[in-house]
Amino acid sequence: MELLKSRIISEGRIIGTDILKVDSFLNHQIDPLIMEEIGKAFAKEFSGEGITKVLTIESSGIAPALSTARFLGVPAIFARKTTSRNLDTDTYVSTVHSFTKGTDYVIRVSKRYLDNKDVVLLIDDFLAKGCALKGLIDVVAQSGAKLAGAGIVIEKGFQEGGDLIRSMGIRVHSLAIINEMSEKENQISFKDEDDFKK
Amino acid sequence: MELLKSRIISEGRIIGTDILKVDSFLNHQIDPLIMEEIGKAFAKEFSGEGITKVLTIESSGIAPALSTARFLGVPAIFARKTTSRNLDTDTYVSTVHSFTKGTDYVIRVSKRYLDNKDVVLLIDDFLAKGCALKGLIDVVAQSGAKLAGAGIVIEKGFQEGGDLIRSMGIRVHSLAIINEMSEKENQISFKDEDDFKK
Repeated sequence: MELLKSRIISEGRIIGTDILKVDSFLNHQIDPLIMEEIGKAFAKEFSGEGITKVLTIESSGIAPALSTARFLGVPAIFARKTTSRNLDTDTYVSTVHSFTKGTDYVIRVSKRYLDNKDVVLLIDDFLAKGCALKGLIDVVAQSGAKLAGAGIVIEKGFQEGGDLIRSMGIRVHSLAIINEMSEKENQISFKDEDDFKK
Repeated sequence: MELLKSRIISEGRIIGTDILKVDSFLNHQIDPLIMEEIGKAFAKEFSGEGITKVLTIESSGIAPALSTARFLGVPAIFARKTTSRNLDTDTYVSTVHSFTKGTDYVIRVSKRYLDNKDVVLLIDDFLAKGCALKGLIDVVAQSGAKLAGAGIVIEKGFQEGGDLIRSMGIRVHSLAIINEMSEKENQISFKDEDDFKK
């Protein structure tokens, strides 16, 4: 998605070798206009799949998931990372490792909103090592729903998550795949999605 | 907002004296159609205020904030409850007490995205004791921005938050204000927003 790539190039800030800050439009401040285009792109890509639910994890996944759900005309669900009085006790549960924080966390989705009649599209803002996405895939498997694929806003193509999830036979569509990035030279290069379609 | 009230009546589940679960459309599963109407209603209510930023707290506030921001044509910002490598270190910080969890938590907003040229609309899914909203009001005060008011999806009119925030001279617009609710009788009654305008 050219608009996304140009926003990443003009506004993204690279820290060290693997952190890309895009908090001016994606995951702290949110630009509704680019979120609109992101949702439209995912809805178009997965339009033939008969999707009934969009599933993400709080918090950064919520905006792209909602936008996609709106264009598909289906509900979005966000998995909870914390227990809440507002969440049912009867939940699908999966454990996700966070490399960033060096800890595990648990995600939960109420059984009330996902079952074996659903066709699910996963959405997330970033794909790096694939841990969060594996947790969501596990939740979908527990529910018996069909998994249509995963829509990722920014994939760190230099980390192993994309290969890992694709090797599971899961369709992954990323709107921008970063090939390399360098804080020192402040440069970012992108891969083509087509590189994965050969 | 009649559509919202009818959804609360048909889908809301009352637990004890003060928990209202609306996780089928608002804060776990999200219905993009009602979120559309919520955003439209807040944008209309605050359209004359020259708003430049919509501000909320992760996670449940993100969907209504994004929808409102889209109709106002401005960015949404969500305050972070956890530190993240993706968040700047130079932040406005406020401490919020959670009665639900019996603990305090810290919210942070990057100074990069809010300053004294902004006019801010606060959005949140619930208003009960007003603690989260007070934290956001504090963040806006620190930034020097002008506060236009707060848009609340569901206000628990039987708790003190609404009176507290209004007594600070802040305009609060709630789309549904619950007067009373009873788990035993499974009944909910609403107040009119006009009750606060006398």
